[in-house]
Amino acid sequence: MRLKRIATVVNGVTETPDDWDRVRSNLVFEKKFVEGLYRLDHFKHIWVIFGFNRMRRTMMKSHPQHNLKKPQVGIFASRSPARPNKLGLTLVQLIGVRRNVVTVKGLDAFDGSPVYDIKPWEEEIDY
Amino acid sequence: MRLKRIATVVNGVTETPDDWDRVRSNLVFEKKFVEGLYRLDHFKHIWVIFGFNRMRRTMMKSHPQHNLKKPQVGIFASRSPARPNKLGLTLVQLIGVRRNVVTVKGLDAFDGSPVYDIKPWEEEIDY
Repeated sequence: MRLKRIATVVNGVTETPDDWDRVRSNLVFEKKFVEGLYRLDHFKHIWVIFGFNRMRRTMMKSHPQHNLKKPQVGIFASRSPARPNKLGLTLVQLIGVRRNVVTVKGLDAFDGSPVYDIKPWEEEIDY
Repeated sequence: MRLKRIATVVNGVTETPDDWDRVRSNLVFEKKFVEGLYRLDHFKHIWVIFGFNRMRRTMMKSHPQHNLKKPQVGIFASRSPARPNKLGLTLVQLIGVRRNVVTVKGLDAFDGSPVYDIKPWEEEIDY
């Protein structure tokens, strides 16, 4: 399946920060998808599915949190970006929605990353 | 981005059942990805990112749960499959891992659906 970029991450972050949780990002949506954001502002948290667009390699095993003291686990037992499909999935706090810009807090994506989907977090299905 | 199928859903389900929560599915992985499943069995719940491969249309708004009495919301404020990228995201119970087969409960995907990624559910990042 070919994914199309629906939005772009704008946060000025080009190197891994001390704490991703404090990073604010604007997800700047393509204009044609603005109507799809209707009533999104009713939610406090959303899922963001984005692309690890700086990652090229795929490894079947990795050390959790890049910590060489922790035993290796399979890539599907980790959240490492070196996966077959370079998809990131992060639960973020929704700060606001204004026209085609969705502002979130806690997204661990670099500036310019492509966003492929967002979905509302709903307690009855996500926990 | 082009996604490659890493596994296929095998559950015999071809029509929407009364209760997806009770459906057991085998995710049959491509042989080359078996190593990536190492230690996955330490987790009780996993995320499955899969393709809504029977869905063709895209709608910017929809009624939640197909309920016409509920007011329409934007596609990104819903989990409807009629989204620009046909990606499903479901938290499922992990039943077991045996060679290249991961057995789960509660996946709302039809028989034959492509799986693009699985990730462990971890309380500190997913809730």
